[in-house]
Amino acid sequence: MLIVQKYGGTSVGSVERIRNVAARALATQRAGHDVVLIVSAMSGETNRLLALAKEVSGDTLPEQRELDVVASTGEQVTVGLCALAIQSLGGKAISFLGHQVRVLTDSAFTRARIQSIDGTKIREALGQGRIAVIAGFQGQDEAGNITTLGRGGSDTSGVAIAAALQASGSKDVVCEIYTDVDGVYTTDPNVCPTARKIARISFEEMLELASLGAKVLQIRSVEMAMNHNVRVHVRSSFHDREGTWVVPEEKSMEHVVVTGIAADKNESKVTVVGVPDEPGIAAKLFRPLGDSGIIVDMIIQNVSSEGRTDLTFTVPRTDLQRARDLMGTIVDPKTIRTDERIAKISVVGVGMRSHAGVAQRMFEILAHEGINIQMISTSEIKISVVVDEKYAELAVRVLHDGFELGKA
Amino acid sequence: MLIVQKYGGTSVGSVERIRNVAARALATQRAGHDVVLIVSAMSGETNRLLALAKEVSGDTLPEQRELDVVASTGEQVTVGLCALAIQSLGGKAISFLGHQVRVLTDSAFTRARIQSIDGTKIREALGQGRIAVIAGFQGQDEAGNITTLGRGGSDTSGVAIAAALQASGSKDVVCEIYTDVDGVYTTDPNVCPTARKIARISFEEMLELASLGAKVLQIRSVEMAMNHNVRVHVRSSFHDREGTWVVPEEKSMEHVVVTGIAADKNESKVTVVGVPDEPGIAAKLFRPLGDSGIIVDMIIQNVSSEGRTDLTFTVPRTDLQRARDLMGTIVDPKTIRTDERIAKISVVGVGMRSHAGVAQRMFEILAHEGINIQMISTSEIKISVVVDEKYAELAVRVLHDGFELGKA
Repeated sequence: MLIVQKYGGTSVGSVERIRNVAARALATQRAGHDVVLIVSAMSGETNRLLALAKEVSGDTLPEQRELDVVASTGEQVTVGLCALAIQSLGGKAISFLGHQVRVLTDSAFTRARIQSIDGTKIREALGQGRIAVIAGFQGQDEAGNITTLGRGGSDTSGVAIAAALQASGSKDVVCEIYTDVDGVYTTDPNVCPTARKIARISFEEMLELASLGAKVLQIRSVEMAMNHNVRVHVRSSFHDREGTWVVPEEKSMEHVVVTGIAADKNESKVTVVGVPDEPGIAAKLFRPLGDSGIIVDMIIQNVSSEGRTDLTFTVPRTDLQRARDLMGTIVDPKTIRTDERIAKISVVGVGMRSHAGVAQRMFEILAHEGINIQMISTSEIKISVVVDEKYAELAVRVLHDGFELGKA
Repeated sequence: MLIVQKYGGTSVGSVERIRNVAARALATQRAGHDVVLIVSAMSGETNRLLALAKEVSGDTLPEQRELDVVASTGEQVTVGLCALAIQSLGGKAISFLGHQVRVLTDSAFTRARIQSIDGTKIREALGQGRIAVIAGFQGQDEAGNITTLGRGGSDTSGVAIAAALQASGSKDVVCEIYTDVDGVYTTDPNVCPTARKIARISFEEMLELASLGAKVLQIRSVEMAMNHNVRVHVRSSFHDREGTWVVPEEKSMEHVVVTGIAADKNESKVTVVGVPDEPGIAAKLFRPLGDSGIIVDMIIQNVSSEGRTDLTFTVPRTDLQRARDLMGTIVDPKTIRTDERIAKISVVGVGMRSHAGVAQRMFEILAHEGINIQMISTSEIKISVVVDEKYAELAVRVLHDGFELGKA
């Protein structure tokens, strides 16, 4: 098997931890696998470097090209140290920087997107019995400038490198993402004590469970895994037990109606009352939000009465004030109502496609607890409702029990 | 003019100092020059990185390829920060790493030699009115591995980049080496209060004055400057006064008989008594030293008496024990005498070529103070004598006064 192991900053945060990572990689290789190691900067290092850059720039906004030059050194130090640690344990290893394995990206400094990776040198190193240690988070654009992929970009590096090796002929590729939790849970165990680790989950479900997954897996890396069909294994760096496999959808997954439940408290609600019910009004209202890069999640338009309608939508809480101001330039500010104290509760599962009645069951469970539903939105494999924020944890628990997610 | 400014680790050791360096580069540019900045790692940073590498390697000797990957990040951070500092002062700047301007070296990791530099990107940046900020100390070998040039390698980077730009057509190129001293002195001012800053010195003299120069200028960089005819200006980073110009030999330099006086206390003396005076004996004695990489400086063979001769030579003090042991495998150890308490005093000047009697004058001055001369060696522009270490400072002072070096 070709195993790409990705370790985050905490896992390589000290010399001792780096030696642990090296030992694990070496054990994996000695078990008969080809091993590629992707590592982040030592925890705290990226922040230290960016703080230096900010300090030296004074009141000026630092140029992003140079920020990437500075920030990318964090991973460079780690790959060198990891290779040395493997060697000191008697193994063979070689480090590679983004530009050395041609992680070609666009030129969007500090948030670049990977366009292609040349696996030749990695494959060569593996062929020599070496562990290839590759700097995550970084790449190089067409002109040879250093780029970085943005926060959490090392997950994406890991999946992208696995994808490139798979595409160029490697069989049986797995991308292991090591974290400080055991895997992906049916819901947040801090909220619901009966939450259970999910053994296998489909890419689509993982994407929908963003708010659960984001803590253990960058969403961009899931998209990339889905697009390139790379199997991802999210697991703990503290023990050897299996974590959660994020994989292409499997037939058996349909038997499970609901896979997980997520609560999102980062949204807020905006209602515009008495909007003229005429063609083009929605476009007119939402254009300034789109132009300002504010992401609108759910939108509901009530039935019209007397040619006027109420329009409700949700935006991230951090953008609420801006959204309100923008709307106020188009409609009378007095017609705008906002509410920050909401929570979006979602039940997710590919089994919904073949099982009817999930929505109805969800509404019944919430109604039974007296939880009022303010908004509803559905997709093929997800049902989301907006409720009062104070009911968020209760809603998660009763849904988790109601759909029997605690049972293996 | 095209001015290459090289700053060492102390000059870029803090955010404040980096801003000073940026201000100076910008002032130079605004005075109408093209400016290329070569910078070292922030002081202490290279040591910190190498200590991490050593720690992670435990009892294993760290592989040099990976040491270079780790160590080269120090300069990478500095170039990014310098570029940002220049930008924050309203200037235009762009950073380049060794591999981005194709500082091609051999593959001797941790002590690589520069083979060629591609000035295209630097010239392009200058053409856009930018200050090019280039990482010193680092390069890339043919296979794309990161290399470093060894301690003090940034001086060499500075001269090499100036040489490359000069070779590819830039007129009027100067390489300014900024240090914490005012320039090169006629002798060590700590030893001799009348020591005077030298305004202009030839490459050859600078090389011979290694022990003076090494504190302000890496010897390899002087060799490179000489080979490529690059004018070097050694000057202080604390003020704007002229320092010392290290330049091709000029006619007027011949009028000065002695340019500087150096004392070297790092040598030790080995004498082998009663060596058979026969062909091939010297080769036999010195081969093991050469094979072990021990550099023999001066060699004296006394007049033979009764077919036997005494052979005396000097080696670095750090190699004395090893040299003694090696000689002991060839001759009877009882015939080996060693002395660590010696000093080599040298007077240097291109004027010696056209002025007779310098050696005689030197011996007279020393004799007048009762300083016994143990060994003598001469080159075209240098006379060195070995004396008892306790006379080193006295010898420097009387020679400095005797040759009137304190007079402008």
